[in-house]
Amino acid sequence: MAVRAAVAGASGYAGGELLRLLLAHPGVEIGALTGHSNAGQRLGSLQPHLLPLAGRVLEPTTAEVLAGHDVVFLALPHGQSAAVAGQLGDEGVVVDMGADFRLRDAGDWEKFYGSPHAGTWPYGLPELPGARAALAGSKRIAVPGCYPTAVSLALFPAYAAQLVEPDAVIVAATGTSGAGKALKPHLLGSEVMGSMSPYGVGGGHRHTPEMIQNLSAAAGEPVTVSFTPTLAPMPRGILATCSARAKPGVTAAGVREAYEKAYADEPFVHLLPEGQWPATASVYGSNAVQIQVAHDKAAGRVIVISAIDNLTKGTAGGAVQSMNIALGLPEDTGLPTTGVAP
Amino acid sequence: MAVRAAVAGASGYAGGELLRLLLAHPGVEIGALTGHSNAGQRLGSLQPHLLPLAGRVLEPTTAEVLAGHDVVFLALPHGQSAAVAGQLGDEGVVVDMGADFRLRDAGDWEKFYGSPHAGTWPYGLPELPGARAALAGSKRIAVPGCYPTAVSLALFPAYAAQLVEPDAVIVAATGTSGAGKALKPHLLGSEVMGSMSPYGVGGGHRHTPEMIQNLSAAAGEPVTVSFTPTLAPMPRGILATCSARAKPGVTAAGVREAYEKAYADEPFVHLLPEGQWPATASVYGSNAVQIQVAHDKAAGRVIVISAIDNLTKGTAGGAVQSMNIALGLPEDTGLPTTGVAP
Amino acid sequence: MAVRAAVAGASGYAGGELLRLLLAHPGVEIGALTGHSNAGQRLGSLQPHLLPLAGRVLEPTTAEVLAGHDVVFLALPHGQSAAVAGQLGDEGVVVDMGADFRLRDAGDWEKFYGSPHAGTWPYGLPELPGARAALAGSKRIAVPGCYPTAVSLALFPAYAAQLVEPDAVIVAATGTSGAGKALKPHLLGSEVMGSMSPYGVGGGHRHTPEMIQNLSAAAGEPVTVSFTPTLAPMPRGILATCSARAKPGVTAAGVREAYEKAYADEPFVHLLPEGQWPATASVYGSNAVQIQVAHDKAAGRVIVISAIDNLTKGTAGGAVQSMNIALGLPEDTGLPTTGVAP
Amino acid sequence: MAVRAAVAGASGYAGGELLRLLLAHPGVEIGALTGHSNAGQRLGSLQPHLLPLAGRVLEPTTAEVLAGHDVVFLALPHGQSAAVAGQLGDEGVVVDMGADFRLRDAGDWEKFYGSPHAGTWPYGLPELPGARAALAGSKRIAVPGCYPTAVSLALFPAYAAQLVEPDAVIVAATGTSGAGKALKPHLLGSEVMGSMSPYGVGGGHRHTPEMIQNLSAAAGEPVTVSFTPTLAPMPRGILATCSARAKPGVTAAGVREAYEKAYADEPFVHLLPEGQWPATASVYGSNAVQIQVAHDKAAGRVIVISAIDNLTKGTAGGAVQSMNIALGLPEDTGLPTTGVAP
Repeated sequence: MAVRAAVAGASGYAGGELLRLLLAHPGVEIGALTGHSNAGQRLGSLQPHLLPLAGRVLEPTTAEVLAGHDVVFLALPHGQSAAVAGQLGDEGVVVDMGADFRLRDAGDWEKFYGSPHAGTWPYGLPELPGARAALAGSKRIAVPGCYPTAVSLALFPAYAAQLVEPDAVIVAATGTSGAGKALKPHLLGSEVMGSMSPYGVGGGHRHTPEMIQNLSAAAGEPVTVSFTPTLAPMPRGILATCSARAKPGVTAAGVREAYEKAYADEPFVHLLPEGQWPATASVYGSNAVQIQVAHDKAAGRVIVISAIDNLTKGTAGGAVQSMNIALGLPEDTGLPTTGVAP
Repeated sequence: MAVRAAVAGASGYAGGELLRLLLAHPGVEIGALTGHSNAGQRLGSLQPHLLPLAGRVLEPTTAEVLAGHDVVFLALPHGQSAAVAGQLGDEGVVVDMGADFRLRDAGDWEKFYGSPHAGTWPYGLPELPGARAALAGSKRIAVPGCYPTAVSLALFPAYAAQLVEPDAVIVAATGTSGAGKALKPHLLGSEVMGSMSPYGVGGGHRHTPEMIQNLSAAAGEPVTVSFTPTLAPMPRGILATCSARAKPGVTAAGVREAYEKAYADEPFVHLLPEGQWPATASVYGSNAVQIQVAHDKAAGRVIVISAIDNLTKGTAGGAVQSMNIALGLPEDTGLPTTGVAP
Repeated sequence: MAVRAAVAGASGYAGGELLRLLLAHPGVEIGALTGHSNAGQRLGSLQPHLLPLAGRVLEPTTAEVLAGHDVVFLALPHGQSAAVAGQLGDEGVVVDMGADFRLRDAGDWEKFYGSPHAGTWPYGLPELPGARAALAGSKRIAVPGCYPTAVSLALFPAYAAQLVEPDAVIVAATGTSGAGKALKPHLLGSEVMGSMSPYGVGGGHRHTPEMIQNLSAAAGEPVTVSFTPTLAPMPRGILATCSARAKPGVTAAGVREAYEKAYADEPFVHLLPEGQWPATASVYGSNAVQIQVAHDKAAGRVIVISAIDNLTKGTAGGAVQSMNIALGLPEDTGLPTTGVAP
Repeated sequence: MAVRAAVAGASGYAGGELLRLLLAHPGVEIGALTGHSNAGQRLGSLQPHLLPLAGRVLEPTTAEVLAGHDVVFLALPHGQSAAVAGQLGDEGVVVDMGADFRLRDAGDWEKFYGSPHAGTWPYGLPELPGARAALAGSKRIAVPGCYPTAVSLALFPAYAAQLVEPDAVIVAATGTSGAGKALKPHLLGSEVMGSMSPYGVGGGHRHTPEMIQNLSAAAGEPVTVSFTPTLAPMPRGILATCSARAKPGVTAAGVREAYEKAYADEPFVHLLPEGQWPATASVYGSNAVQIQVAHDKAAGRVIVISAIDNLTKGTAGGAVQSMNIALGLPEDTGLPTTGVAP
C-alpha cells in the first residue's frame, strides 16, 4: 500500500524535482502540495514539466494542510522548516530538505545562519558510516546540502582511511538551479550563460560547517575546509574538485583501494574505472554519484572529484533515498541511476 | 514475462536514449548491444550516463548477434537498417529508428536519399488517424523522423478539420543531438554555444517528404511544405513553429476546439491551457508533446507550436510507444511524461 | 574634435552595449550617464565588463543632467523616451533607442502600445531606401527595433524588386538580452538554458507594425506579417527566418541578383556566398548582418535568413551608425564588423 | 607606418582571435595567412566572423610564404612552431603562440611534451617582474599558455610578497575553445552543453611546469602546484581559483595591499573592489584580467581568483600586448579592455 506524501514548497526547484521523483515512485501517492505566495495557483503554470500534476492547485503551507500524511517533505527556506515542523505531530515521517536540522553544533548554526538552533535530526546521507542505522525507522530526516553531499562522498573515504591531512581544499561548480528560483540579476540567463564566477569565497558559504562536520567525523579529528563555490552556465549539476595533502607513504594504489572498498556495495556511488572522469552530464536527473581519484606525487596531494545532480542526489533524490530507508523500503525504490544525456 | 530486446547502434545518441528508456521499462530485458567501429568497447566509456550497463561490451552488428530476440531496434544510419533488416527473420519485432521504411513513395525516397527504396513499414506515430490499428500486432515498425513527429502532431488536426490551406510554412529549432555524434566542425561545442543557424534551407531536408506524406494524408489533398530547420544551442529538444493560411470562416475558438477534440484522449499530447506556450525544457527527457494554437486574424494564419524532446518522443520514446502497441502492452509502459527541468 | 555624448539608461543592456561601442569610437567623448533606480551607484557594479568606466557614478535621468551634450542617447523603456525628449532643447542630436518615435501611424501605436502617439522621427535603418537622406543632419533619430532590423533587411529587397507576395511569414529566435534585464522567472538562467520557447504568438508582438511599415513601404502595397518570436538559450543574437510566396516567374538566380544589387555597397550587410548560412555567432558583438537567400520551388516560396546581434546592429550599433550619418562622420566610424567567435 | 604581420595557423581559434585583434590594430597590416590542411580555402568559410577577411585565401605554412614580414605569428601545435621558427631569418619579430619556447628547463619540457627542447624565448607575460625589459626590442616572444596566464597573474604577487607557503592548489574552469577546433567526441556541443568535467587531473597537464616556473621565480624558492583543469559549458573564458596556505601573521588587509601595489599601474589587470568577484563574462573578448583576493582565516588560506578570456589575454591578446612592447608601441595599442557582455 502506497504511503501518502505531502510536499510543502512545491513551486520551487527542489519541490519540483521531488515531485518528478515521487511521480515515478511505486510506493508513494502524492497528497497535498503547498506554496507560499503561489498558493491558489495551478501547478501546471509553475512547474510545466510535471504534466501529470498540471491540474493540481497549491494550498497554503499550514500544519492543517500537511496533517494526515504518512510523509511530509519540507522544501522550504531555512528557518521556515523548523517553524512548520514544530507544528506537525509525531505520527508521520518529516523530511526537511532545508538546512534547519543538519548541524549538530548550535554555535556553528548561529554563526552561519544567524538564528537560534532548532535541533539535529538523523542525517540523510546514507553512504556515511552509521547513517543507515540512524535513518532506519526514523520519523525525522535532515537532508544534506547539495555541496556537502558531493564533497562528503568525495572525501570521507580518504579521511576514514587516514590517507590525507586534515586541511581539505575544495572548489566546486554548481548549476544555477542550486541558487533556487530567486529573482536576482546575477541569475538571469543573459548573465549566467557563457560565464563562470565564484561566490561566498573565503569561508563564508553556509555549507562549510556541514562539510567540516562530516569530514571531521570520518577523520576522527577536526578537519579544516577551504571551500570555494562557483556558478557554472548549466541548469543542474555539481562538479566538486576536492583535495588534501597526502599522508606519508600514501600511494595511488592505496587511494584507489580505499575507495573501492568504501563504495563496493553502494547502489548509487560509482567509482569510475581508471582513465575515466566524472561529468555532470552523466548524472543529469539521476541519483547516481560519479567519483574518480588521483594521487599527484609531485604536489603531494590526493585529488578526488565527484559529480552529482544537485537537485537529485543533492536534494530530492537524497530525500527519497533516506525516506525509503526510514520506511523500510528497498533503498533504491523509484530512484533513477541513469542520467539523461546527451 | 519480459521480452528480450537487442539494440543495433547502441553507441549513438538514439541508441543511448533507447537504452535509458528500456532500462526503466518493466516488460523488457536488454539483450545484445551492437556497434560498428565501437564493437569490442565497454558501453561505460561510450555512454557514461547508462551506469547500469557500464560493463556491457558492444558486439558487431550482424544478423547472428541480433537473432533470437523478441524485439530488435535498429538505431543505424539510413541504408544500413534496410540491409540488416533484410537478414533478420520474421519471428521477432523489428523497429527501424532510421529512415529506410518511412516513405510510401519510392520516387520521393530516391530523390531525397539517392538510393533504391527498401519498402514501407507501419508508421510509428500512433496519434495519426489509423496508425494504432496498423501497429497493433505488427512485426515491423518505421519510427518517424524527429521533425516529422513534431510537425505532424502540430498540424494534422488543422488539416484533418479542414481549417487551413494546403501550403504549410514550418520553422523548427532542434538541439544538437538531432545531428548525431558525428565529428563535424560545426557541431563542436565552441561553435554551437551561443549560436543559432539554419541548414537544409529551401526544401532540401530529408524530413520534408515525410511531413508532406503525413499532412497530405490528413488533408485529403496534396499539401506543400516549406521547411526550415535551425540548430539551437541546446543538447535536446525541438520547437516547431508551424503555420498555414486559415480557410475562410475559421475562428480562434474553432481552431482550439479541433485540437481539444483531436487530443482529448492522447496520453502523451498536451494541448496547453490558453496563455501558456510550449517550451522544450518542459519535455526534456520525456515522451510528452506540448502544443499550443493561435489564430492571427490580421495575417490570416493559423499558428501551431509544438515542443518535443527529439531523442525521446522524437526517436526512442516514439519507438518504445509503438513497440508497446505492437506487443499489446499498455501504450505508455515505461515512458516518462514528466520532463527533467529546470 | 570629439562630440560629447550622454547616455540615459546606462545600466541596462542597450545602454551597456552603447557604452562599449562609444568607448571605441574615436569621435565621441562620454559625458553624463544616468539611471533610474540605479542613480548613485558605480557603473563598475552594474556593468562590470565596462572596465574603463568602472568608477563612473550614475546620475538621475533628468533634462538638467542630459543638457549641454552634443548627442543624447535615450536607452529607456517606451513612453519614458518621449517624456524626456520633450524636455530636451533642439541644439543637440537626440537618439531614441526605444520605440516611441518609430511608427508613422498613430493608430498602430495606440493599438500596440496603449498610449498616445508621441510623433515620428527619422528612422535609423540606413540601408532602407531613402533613410540616409532623412538621417543626414537630422537632430532626431528613432532607432529601429531589433526584430524589425533583422526582418526588414532580410525582406525589403524582395519586396522592392516585386519578387514576393504581400504575406510574409517570419519566425525569429532571439538571445535573452532582447528581453532586457527584467527580473522575470522565465528569464532566469535555470529556465532558459536548454530551452526554446515562443512568446507573443499570433500577431501580438509590438514589433509587428514596425515590420509591416517597412515592408509595405518597400512593396508599395500593404504587406501582412505573421511574426513568431522565440527565445533561444543564448545571451545575444537574432536569427530571422523570413519567407513569402514567390511571384510567378521568380527564379533562384533572380532572387540572388536582387539581393546582390541591394547590398552591393552596404558596409554592414553581407550577402553570404551560396552554400554558406548565417549564424548568430558570426556577428556576436558586431554591427554586421549576414544574409542568405533561397528559392523553394516545390513550396513556391522565397526564404531569406538574416543574422544580427540584437544589441549591436539591432540596437546600439544601429544607433551609432545613424548618429554617424546625422553628424556627417563616416558611417562605419567606431563600429566593429568582426564578430567575437567562437 | 604599419608593420606587416603574417599569421601561420589562421584557421584555428587562436589564429582567428589574433586576426580579430589585428584587424582593429592601427599599427598592423595583415599579410600572409597560412593553414595546413586548409591551405587553398577561403577564410570566409573557415572563420565566418572575420568578415573583412572573408575573401582571403590560406596559403601553405612555409618559410617562403612567411618571409618578408615584420612580424610572424605562429599559431601552430607545439613542435611545429619550433620547426617553422628554425627556418625564419632574424630580420623580423617571431611570436610563438604555442608552447615550444616557454619552458626554461629542458628536462621539464621533455617530461611533459616528450620531444627535445627547442630553447627558451623571452616570456610574453609583461606583468611579471622583469618581463617587460626582456620583451622590449626582442625579436622572439614566447606567448604564455592560457592557464599559466590566469594562474600566474593570480598568485605571483602573493609569492613575491612572501604571503603564502610554496604549495599552491589550483582549480580552473575553461571554455571549450581552450581545447581548440579538434574533432573529438567529448568536445561536441551535445556533450559539453550542460556539463562540467575535469581532465588532466593529478599533475599531468602540460601547463603545470610553466606555472611552477613562474611562481617559483616569484617566490624565490621551489613552489609545488596541484592543478586541476575543468571543461565548462561556455565557448570562452578561464576562471582560476587559486589558493595556498597563508604564512604566519598574514592578514586580509595585508593581502589586499600586496595586490593593490602589484597591479596599481597595470593597464589590463583589475583588482576588483571588495565584495565584487571576477566573472568570465566580464572579460569576454577583452584583454583585461579581473582579480579578487580573500583570506580564509579558519582554513588558514589565501584564495585568489582570476578571470580572463583564454583566447584574448590568454593567447592572442597577450601576443599582441607583447608584440607592442617588442616593437616599442604603446602596450595597449589595439587591445580592447571592455568585455562583450551580456
